[in-house]
Formats: sequence, C-alpha cells, structure tokens
Amino acid sequence: MSTARLVTLGEMKAVLPEVDLLEEMKRGFIAYSNGQCVIPPVGELILDDPAPGEVHIKYGFIRGGDRYVIKIASGFPMNRELGIHTSNGMMILFNQRTGEVETLLHDEGYLTDVRTAAAGALATCTMAPSSVTRIGIIGTGVQARMQLQQTAGALDCTQASVWGRDTDHASNFITDFAESGIEVSPEPDVRGVLESCEVVITCTSSLEPLVRSEWVRPGTHITAVGSDTPDKQELDVALLGRADRVIVDSLDQGRLRGEVAHALKAGVLEETEVTELGLVLRDSSMGRVSDDQVTIADLTGVAVQDLMIAESVARLLERT
Amino acid sequence: MSTARLVTLGEMKAVLPEVDLLEEMKRGFIAYSNGQCVIPPVGELILDDPAPGEVHIKYGFIRGGDRYVIKIASGFPMNRELGIHTSNGMMILFNQRTGEVETLLHDEGYLTDVRTAAAGALATCTMAPSSVTRIGIIGTGVQARMQLQQTAGALDCTQASVWGRDTDHASNFITDFAESGIEVSPEPDVRGVLESCEVVITCTSSLEPLVRSEWVRPGTHITAVGSDTPDKQELDVALLGRADRVIVDSLDQGRLRGEVAHALKAGVLEETEVTELGLVLRDSSMGRVSDDQVTIADLTGVAVQDLMIAESVARLLERT
Repeated sequence: MSTARLVTLGEMKAVLPEVDLLEEMKRGFIAYSNGQCVIPPVGELILDDPAPGEVHIKYGFIRGGDRYVIKIASGFPMNRELGIHTSNGMMILFNQRTGEVETLLHDEGYLTDVRTAAAGALATCTMAPSSVTRIGIIGTGVQARMQLQQTAGALDCTQASVWGRDTDHASNFITDFAESGIEVSPEPDVRGVLESCEVVITCTSSLEPLVRSEWVRPGTHITAVGSDTPDKQELDVALLGRADRVIVDSLDQGRLRGEVAHALKAGVLEETEVTELGLVLRDSSMGRVSDDQVTIADLTGVAVQDLMIAESVARLLERT
Repeated sequence: MSTARLVTLGEMKAVLPEVDLLEEMKRGFIAYSNGQCVIPPVGELILDDPAPGEVHIKYGFIRGGDRYVIKIASGFPMNRELGIHTSNGMMILFNQRTGEVETLLHDEGYLTDVRTAAAGALATCTMAPSSVTRIGIIGTGVQARMQLQQTAGALDCTQASVWGRDTDHASNFITDFAESGIEVSPEPDVRGVLESCEVVITCTSSLEPLVRSEWVRPGTHITAVGSDTPDKQELDVALLGRADRVIVDSLDQGRLRGEVAHALKAGVLEETEVTELGLVLRDSSMGRVSDDQVTIADLTGVAVQDLMIAESVARLLERT
C-alpha cells in the first residue's frame, strides 16, 4: 500500500519563507514557454445552489520531471457571511513514473494565492519602467495585499496607492500595511491610481472594465491578475489595443480567459501581438524596450506555477 | 482552519460491504439521465516518459446535493515490473456550499474499480435476457474479476467462461474463483465465449476489436467496460450497427470515447439509436423487450458513480 503525506497549511507556512518564489515562477514560465510542459485546459465547476461557487482544476507536468500536479482551487464568495475563507482547495503531487500519490498539500487556497502574487510580482518587475517610485493597487482583498507585499519587495519600493470599491476595506488595507514599512495612500478613484503610479496591479473580480485607456500615461505598466475566467474583466479593451507590449502567462489560456480574450474577441488585438512571459524572461528584448511604452501583463494562472510551488514546498518538507 | 479527513484503503474496505453498490449506481445514473448532474468533460493527462501512464480526472455534482467530487484515477502498466499496482488515485469530497475539503479517500484506484464493476453488473442485469446460465468474461485482470464477482451475485449465476490473451493469467483466474463457488471454464478464443454464454462482459484495454459481429448469437447481451478513451476498442463496429439496443452510461462521453464513439465515427450507428442507462432504469421499455434481441451496453465511467460510492463510504465512516 502506498503512503501519501497530508500536509497542513501550518506546515507549509513554516517552510514557505525558504522558497525563492520569483525564481521558481521564472523557471516554470520559461519551461512552459519552451514547450516543455504538458498542461491541458483548465477544468471548471460552477455552482449556484445553495451558494455561488467556482472551482478550478489546473494540472500538468514538465516533461522529464519527477512529479505531476493536480491543483484544485475554489472561490465561494458567500463564505464571508459564514466567517470562513472564500478560497479553498489543495495541491496534489503524484509520481510521474507510477501515478502514486506522494504529497497532499491541503493549502486551503493559500499556495494558489502565493504563487499568483509571485507571478504578478515577477511580471511587474520584468515589464516595469526603469524607475518606479509608487506602486498602484486596484482592489483590497487577499490577492491585492499579497501582490503589494511581493512587488514592493521585488522592486524595493515602499510607496503605494490603493483604490477599492469599499472605502472601509481600503482603510483597513492602509492600516495593515503601516507596520510593514510600506506607506500606502488612498486614491478616490481608479484614475487617481493611474495618475500617481508607474506600475499598477489590478486584483479584483470585476465583470466590467475598471481601467480606461485614456487614464493610462505613457510609460505605465499594468499587471492584471483578477480576471481568470471568460467573463471577468478589469481593463478596457482599447487599452490592450493601444499597448506597446501585451504579455500573458499562457497564450493557450489567454485565448479563452482574461483581458486578452476580451480584446481578441473585440478585434482590437491580434494573437501575433501577444507574447508569453516565459519568452520575455528568456529574451528581454521581447519585453519593454523604452520607458515611454505602455505595457500590459495579463495573468490567468498556469498549472506550472502550481507545480513549481508545490514541489518546492514538498522538497523542503521531505527534510523533516 | 478547516479539517479534512484522509481515509486509507483499509478503512474503506472495512465499510464497503455495507454499501448497496448496485442501488447507489442506479440512483446515480437516474439522476444523471434526468439532467440533475453537472459533469464537465473528463480531464486527461497522458504521460510517456519514463513510463507510459494515463490519468483521468472525473468531477461533478448532483444539483441540490451536499458535496461535489473530484476523482483522480491513473493507470501505469509498467508498475507491474516494479511490483506495484498499475491503478492508483483518490476521490475527494468537497462541501457544495463552501468548497471546503471534507473527505480525502486515498483509494489507490480501488473505489474506481469497484464502482466500474457495479455499473457493469447493473447494466448487465438490466439488459440480460430472461434466462442466464453462463456469464462470459473477456479479460483476466482486476476488472474482469470484479465484474464476474458482482455480476454472478446480481444474476445469481455460478457458471462462467473466460478468455484471456495470456493462458497463464486465465488459469490463475479460474483457480482464484474456484474457492468462491463460481465455476469458471476456459475458452480457447473469444468466439468460444460468445457461443457458450448469454451475457458477455469485455474488460480489456484492447486497441483492436476482439468481438466480431458474426460470432454473436441472437439474445446475447454484451457489456463493454474496457474502452474508456477515444482509441481503445473491444467490439467490432458492425456489432453496434446490428444491435437492437445500444445503451451508454453517458451519451456526452459516448460521443467521444468507447465503442459508441467508434461506431458513430464509422457511420454504422446514429446518436438517436443510443439510449442512456439511466433512462432504461427509469423505464424498462427502453431496454431489452424480447429474448431474441442483441443488446450492447458501452460504459466509459461517469463522475456521478464516483460521487455515489465516495459519499456512501464517507457517510459510513462518519459514524466512527
């Protein structure tokens, strides 16, 4: 009988600081864009009774690697009323030679949040103009916080602006960051964030565009991480049409989900104008080439990120 | 922090005898064919290096139910050389209202084998002619054994014939059943099985048809459980064209996988000639209506079966 290890969130959090998240994401995206990964389309369950919920199944492997991953991540917004996390799920690692279950990371959605933020920070650093004095955050949820934390660290920038639909949430956001040494100012609207920051990260579950093209100044980079389904949308399609560089984590997914899917459908963007992050990481000339360019990174989240973070955590836990 | 229970195979085996498997499958198939289920297409990973392997992800829920299931089942044929099971995997139950992980059934593929055999026995009983004196089994693996065990019990029939590609495996099969009160005779070829039995269950991973239409006598029922992918095939397409009734567990899956997919593609069968098992279970006039008819049940395995068996086991384990 095979043995599988069930790892709790507490155990994961204990080793996670030892993981070089941006480096792991970088290796994963390069392998992905090199065609070394097998990653089928995202599986999806949509629930609506007794409460709305959304479940994503992402899975795949790197050819020649040791393990394949199957990652389940859910969002049930009404959980807030029950006093429990809206995110949940787990990552499971299997032996690539035998199919045996090796490690069950019951991360309750946490590793997904962390790897999403790491990918956002990586994309933002990779595409940012040469000088960033202030980071803009649209949204005030868990992902907005993690994006700011990781991006501020990666860019060595301690000034930020935030806008959220709910002003109480925005106040809490600012207070919570005060102790971390990151000084966050509130903005009354999305436009204010765009006007005060060189890089902006959008982290909402909006179904309507929040960022209008005319508010975006030359030189701005925007990383959009909120939209990971065909319906969610944070950016005006005109902005993608106008941008000098549009990058995605996965072109296969970008055709179907996120900002790029909307812009392709609207006919303002051609697939040939979209570049994968893994290619830019390998060859920086495919990314930003001047400080005047407007650049967009649209991330929908790829299974290779789940594989990289799950394997990193599992390797560290194997010592114990 | 949410708690998830990791259940071992031993714990599952201890409660499984208390589950009325055929009744659970029946309820599941009826719910499925009534349109009460949400079951997305099967997810699939195909591995080939360092060893060939196949992973299926089946998932879904019954509307208004308590849980959704995500089931992972793998087959790695080369495991035999390593002395480990070729099947592996797990079933995971999640709360339908919150997405919380509730029960992790690390069944190593066992529950999938059991529910597949139960569905086969149910389909065979439902479609069999009025008198069955001998059950035919094509194949000698784990699924062939389980099908015979469950079908013999359900039909109250203790005579069987078996054919397998490997005569040593067929001999072991016969010996192993001797103690169980089921008398199994070997047949030198597939034709011999068809000529001696009223019902025949095919349980191989063949890529070429094994059963030819001209060997099938009027009144025969065949349940084909081996083919669950677009490429595997056990029955000559002419047999599906000729059959008086062709039933499937899922028409959505039958379009893409299994015997029906081959026959539809060959143009010898129309989709309108194919009926779902759940509809026959609800209204027997949609099944066999005379003892002279040739009937076929083609089963590719549906997530509702996984949900039914996983929930049954979890409910029994909740007592402890």
